[in-house]
Amino acid sequence: MYRRVLIANRGEIALRVIRACKEMGIESVAVFSEGDRGANYLSLADEAYCIGPAKASESYLKIANVIAAAEVGNVEAIHPGFGFLSENAHFNEICRNCQIDFIGPSPEAMASLGDKNTARELARQAGVPVVPGSDGCIAEESEAVRFAHAVGFPVLIKATAGGGGRGMRVASNDLALKSALQQARAEAEAAFGNGDVYLEKYIEHPRHVEVQVLADKHGNAIHLWERDCSTQRRHQKLIEESPSPNITEETRLKMCEAAVRMIKAANYSNAATVEFIVDGKGDFYFIEVNARIQVEHPVTELVTGVDLIKAQLRISAGEELWLKQEDIPRLGHAIECRINAEDPAKNFQPSPGKIERLVIPGGFGVRFDSHAHSGYVVPPYYDSMIGKLLVRQPTREEAIACMLRCLAELKVDGIKTTIPLHKEILSHTAFSEARIDTTFVERTFTGG
Amino acid sequence: MYRRVLIANRGEIALRVIRACKEMGIESVAVFSEGDRGANYLSLADEAYCIGPAKASESYLKIANVIAAAEVGNVEAIHPGFGFLSENAHFNEICRNCQIDFIGPSPEAMASLGDKNTARELARQAGVPVVPGSDGCIAEESEAVRFAHAVGFPVLIKATAGGGGRGMRVASNDLALKSALQQARAEAEAAFGNGDVYLEKYIEHPRHVEVQVLADKHGNAIHLWERDCSTQRRHQKLIEESPSPNITEETRLKMCEAAVRMIKAANYSNAATVEFIVDGKGDFYFIEVNARIQVEHPVTELVTGVDLIKAQLRISAGEELWLKQEDIPRLGHAIECRINAEDPAKNFQPSPGKIERLVIPGGFGVRFDSHAHSGYVVPPYYDSMIGKLLVRQPTREEAIACMLRCLAELKVDGIKTTIPLHKEILSHTAFSEARIDTTFVERTFTGG
Repeated sequence: MYRRVLIANRGEIALRVIRACKEMGIESVAVFSEGDRGANYLSLADEAYCIGPAKASESYLKIANVIAAAEVGNVEAIHPGFGFLSENAHFNEICRNCQIDFIGPSPEAMASLGDKNTARELARQAGVPVVPGSDGCIAEESEAVRFAHAVGFPVLIKATAGGGGRGMRVASNDLALKSALQQARAEAEAAFGNGDVYLEKYIEHPRHVEVQVLADKHGNAIHLWERDCSTQRRHQKLIEESPSPNITEETRLKMCEAAVRMIKAANYSNAATVEFIVDGKGDFYFIEVNARIQVEHPVTELVTGVDLIKAQLRISAGEELWLKQEDIPRLGHAIECRINAEDPAKNFQPSPGKIERLVIPGGFGVRFDSHAHSGYVVPPYYDSMIGKLLVRQPTREEAIACMLRCLAELKVDGIKTTIPLHKEILSHTAFSEARIDTTFVERTFTGG
Repeated sequence: MYRRVLIANRGEIALRVIRACKEMGIESVAVFSEGDRGANYLSLADEAYCIGPAKASESYLKIANVIAAAEVGNVEAIHPGFGFLSENAHFNEICRNCQIDFIGPSPEAMASLGDKNTARELARQAGVPVVPGSDGCIAEESEAVRFAHAVGFPVLIKATAGGGGRGMRVASNDLALKSALQQARAEAEAAFGNGDVYLEKYIEHPRHVEVQVLADKHGNAIHLWERDCSTQRRHQKLIEESPSPNITEETRLKMCEAAVRMIKAANYSNAATVEFIVDGKGDFYFIEVNARIQVEHPVTELVTGVDLIKAQLRISAGEELWLKQEDIPRLGHAIECRINAEDPAKNFQPSPGKIERLVIPGGFGVRFDSHAHSGYVVPPYYDSMIGKLLVRQPTREEAIACMLRCLAELKVDGIKTTIPLHKEILSHTAFSEARIDTTFVERTFTGG
């Protein structure tokens, strides 16, 4: 096992990794920007180095500075956390060149999954369903019509250069398709200087379900069941839970097995999440692989009892997978609410500043992961997540009741947070009845 | 299920019950003494009534005041918590006369288990081993010698009227027995005005192991495995864990089954703990039944996933046991450290006062149950326990590492606590190697 590890991240996930290292007897080296200087969690690491100004591009994202800290800190490995450099294959490769273990997949596996086309191709090879799409961009109107007839309406038009919904249109019949095609092309041209578009089958009532996988460096891979992350707003997950409340046992197993096949096909090692979109009929389609630990990983930890960060460290250090598929239980129902320093009443604008008082709920089945504390100043420079409130209970109904109890106890005075929105969502019958898809929050809540 | 329940207790356990009620949709009525007026946890109850001055004998122990609050609060049941009136059969009976459910056993079962002789007799009938003892008090020296030869040395001389170690002597041979008998009698006479003594077999290297039981009102009873509470100081438990680290699987099963037999023999319903003493050879002997929920109940909740407070409420309301013995898992290893407002460096003298800052650890497998918070003033009138820090991990070794990590993070500034002693105990090789008996702490630590 490693003697000393650097954590190339900040806040909650940095603390999460520091804690795991401490429990494993591994020395931890933290890094921090000027914006995080003096943060309490840094004092829990064995050492902490400043790696630049508050701006992430000059500190947490600055590869040279992180590597320098790793060299000075004399570490054997780097845990990248999530965000920042965690899915940067170039950084991953530099680590290898410096003979520092990157705690994650190889740069090759990361790069091949990072490319949407390669990833889709890998999925096809592994027999994992992907959302039916046109092969490359649409040259002729007739091509679009042929595709739509082949996969069935509605279809989604997407800009090749696209992002943020621009150049995106949904069409439900031939006529609509033809005009949507024109509009999408014009919009894409205006937005990206590139009018190329492609088509995908539009998934109605889409649910976001993802499978947690662990794979070692010896060819063994297992899944740790799925998480449902359909409760999101503008593609930002708000609430995650496991098991997924509205897929059949058959779908669940098929998805989990597909995820393992996908990871094996990519020759991947370490923790990964295979993301799927599930339609109203229970058919699922591969979206992408997150080649890193995810924010919502504790949901899986609660239902399986497996510490995923420790697992990452052990796998990276070369240990053969100590868990068999049949060792992975499903213990009740877990829910996570992301507590963000945002104001749901003001279009989720960031709400940095001083937390005057933080009151943390406790009790049966409750977990709170946070670097925040009474007196902590949330800096304005980074992601707004300040904590993760999690519960596990025997049933989903009990988990919702427990989460509502905890949300009522949790106090984050001094700044605005997503707590009120979480209360609204969890009290909504559509949520308790699990009638949720990825459009649920935006359709239902003013704040959403 | 009940619509409304009164909680006849304070502090951590009151909060524990309020939380369970909230999650079950039951209204909770809290009571408080003048010494607890304004405590934050009271605001989480639906109502709260003052029941008298700070002194417990004039408030929490005052049956008339508690009953009055229950009448005014219009509740259907009373949860007594632990301590105070929780094992008072008279109070239990008054509740029944007032047609208020006492959330616990019947007054009859409570009374019969509360009497040491009846309880021993019940144990014998149920085939549960008891510590061999002389039948009643010793009249003649020769009787004592005969008993010692029959059960084997060493033997323990105890005052019939005794307590607190007075009139208590250990003897390892005939000569020592004769002189110890004289000394014990004289001491008992001086201390209690009653020189009567009796003999018991002295258990060497005694370990305290207790079994959690749940029994419904329909004759069903199950055990929820055992807790080892050998890490204690002057009969005050400091650290509890499950499973017990040094009994065999065979002993474990035998003890658990004996506990269920005992509870069934007593015609007992609700939660109970059957306490045993285990000797160095693994032989176990019944000590007593705690006819209530215990401080350390969350240890069992962590390894079994069963919420014992909710179970108490459901059983009391008449529900038939929804769990079968084979449904009760053993999920890894749990440890609890009692965080007391006491100064281990000053003979554990109470250390009430204001908690200037409370920092609570979080993360994988961590639970913290406490009514305290930054700014909370620990009143001088009651038990010194201010919180329970618990961890669960796959193995005992990992649980110890996790607890040490958590103890390092936990900050209770402003008052003295047992945190430093817990760190010492958990870092001690005798603890990590599970070479502990009930004398371990006092033998080993200055502060102990």
